[in-house]
Amino acid sequence: MIQTPYLLFLGDAPDQLAAKVARGIRDWRPEHCVGQFRLPGCKADVGLPDLGLAEARAAGAKTLVIGVANRGGVISREWKKVLVMALEEGLDLASGLHNLLRDEPDLTAMAQATARTLHDVRVPGGNYSIANGLPRRGKRCLAVGTDCSVGKMYTALAMDAEMVRRGRKSRFCATGQTGILISGEGVPLDAVVADFMAGAVEWLTPDADEDHWDMIEGQGSLFHVSYSGVTMALIHGGQPDALILGHEPTRTHMRGLPGYDLPGLEALRDTVLPLARISNPKARVVGVSINTATMEEDEAMSYLKATEARMGLPVVDPVRQGAARLCDALDGI
Amino acid sequence: MIQTPYLLFLGDAPDQLAAKVARGIRDWRPEHCVGQFRLPGCKADVGLPDLGLAEARAAGAKTLVIGVANRGGVISREWKKVLVMALEEGLDLASGLHNLLRDEPDLTAMAQATARTLHDVRVPGGNYSIANGLPRRGKRCLAVGTDCSVGKMYTALAMDAEMVRRGRKSRFCATGQTGILISGEGVPLDAVVADFMAGAVEWLTPDADEDHWDMIEGQGSLFHVSYSGVTMALIHGGQPDALILGHEPTRTHMRGLPGYDLPGLEALRDTVLPLARISNPKARVVGVSINTATMEEDEAMSYLKATEARMGLPVVDPVRQGAARLCDALDGI
Repeated sequence: MIQTPYLLFLGDAPDQLAAKVARGIRDWRPEHCVGQFRLPGCKADVGLPDLGLAEARAAGAKTLVIGVANRGGVISREWKKVLVMALEEGLDLASGLHNLLRDEPDLTAMAQATARTLHDVRVPGGNYSIANGLPRRGKRCLAVGTDCSVGKMYTALAMDAEMVRRGRKSRFCATGQTGILISGEGVPLDAVVADFMAGAVEWLTPDADEDHWDMIEGQGSLFHVSYSGVTMALIHGGQPDALILGHEPTRTHMRGLPGYDLPGLEALRDTVLPLARISNPKARVVGVSINTATMEEDEAMSYLKATEARMGLPVVDPVRQGAARLCDALDGI
Repeated sequence: MIQTPYLLFLGDAPDQLAAKVARGIRDWRPEHCVGQFRLPGCKADVGLPDLGLAEARAAGAKTLVIGVANRGGVISREWKKVLVMALEEGLDLASGLHNLLRDEPDLTAMAQATARTLHDVRVPGGNYSIANGLPRRGKRCLAVGTDCSVGKMYTALAMDAEMVRRGRKSRFCATGQTGILISGEGVPLDAVVADFMAGAVEWLTPDADEDHWDMIEGQGSLFHVSYSGVTMALIHGGQPDALILGHEPTRTHMRGLPGYDLPGLEALRDTVLPLARISNPKARVVGVSINTATMEEDEAMSYLKATEARMGLPVVDPVRQGAARLCDALDGI
């Protein structure tokens, strides 16, 4: 568990997009953010106070979170200076970068000297077991997509936020690097050894109160041949009671696979439901989450309306409309 | 690639079953076996000449293969003595044990001193890529099961042997520890990191001649919630042209999952085929392989006949009947 609150490190981000991890944390866990730290030339801004390391520490910050992608897969000298100083100030470090903090000898030495923790959220933490398939108490919701990167994490976060707003028991269960940095814990499922994938998801979503919802972050797609095994393990390990279908209507082929067409929402529904019912016979598809980011408002609204008529389910873009109707669809489950 | 021929180490196996890995190698690759090595008290015998280490070396042996399960997860002192001496004699070691040869300091020291290789086939060897889903030349066949351990490896080995007997181009592609020890190479798929599973299977079954068949060893089952992600990756990474359905008719529940019923062969067919067609639109189910080991001959034959009438496909037990009819079913693909 990563200690909060955070100081968000934006480094020398060349644009807003490079700092999207920081943006995600600021959007979904503003109460965990005391400020942002920017190097000269930084072109990103997530709208938090610019704080120095000592100021942030004084404001209560426990962890410096790297909220920016680095270039060329190396941690630059400029970054390194700040990271070392942050440890000296008494801050832990957390990172989802491919190149690990723990592989940097100067950082490990300083972390040891200062008794600080380096969190590399790409590295699975637990000793997961092989899944036992036993039914668990409480409720689980999982978003599955026609493709990767169609908004499954956003959907789970938005539904969790809406449930919390309603005073319901809910928890966002992160299965990827950004999700883990946002929520401070989780399982980096794509880095788990094959035999333990489903067991890791069981560990992440344990027994809970009957009226508690785990909002599980989806990964990949059953129709994406590079990652479908990860998605399958998530469906069987997660034992979802409720499934949300995710889709991005303007994509012309599967992400990274030019030869592969996207399936329709009906094909996704008909494929996922019998598979989900193997581990949870009560599994239901309750709604559809559409990512209309690249569409004009009129076009988006008419697409959502037509899709809702076609699918007979609530169909929303949670960014434009919020997740209220998706949460309504959980009532009675 | 493990160097052949082998001396098979049966150790102090308490019964024949404990030496089933050695038995598998002897059955499927007799041309790679110069003999067996047994300790006092060994109750297993795979019918090969008992050879000492020097004798085996003189007979051409290159590798001592541990063909027996150990007890308690430790490599005993008695075993260790033989393994060290085998290295001194100039033999490599190969093992599928959970406790790794490379974790034993005396073995690594001796292997280094003698310039020998320790093969731990549970440890993935390659730097696999993320699957790219590109179509590959040549043909691929994969057995998928209603459950784990229903005879998928045996089916692939029997089909490969039959194809070779017919003078056809065929290769057994191992995806598990025993299969790797039998064939000398492969991918221990259950130990591969999630993101790279399908890519590892693509690597294992690359472009080949149009009339070449890769007989891919199956793993797990889409209906086994502990391992379904591994099976899914195998289906999408393997791009099978031909699928064989595997089943064990007397099993009362999924292996290790008392609360889970086995699916029928029809449910398996209807689940696997649309998923397989995502990566290979020409995928077909061509036959059924039934493990009737626990049934009497009469019962087995009438079950096979009735199932064949029901499924409209060749239905055989390759142990009782050979794999000829399954290979016939590949003609014209």
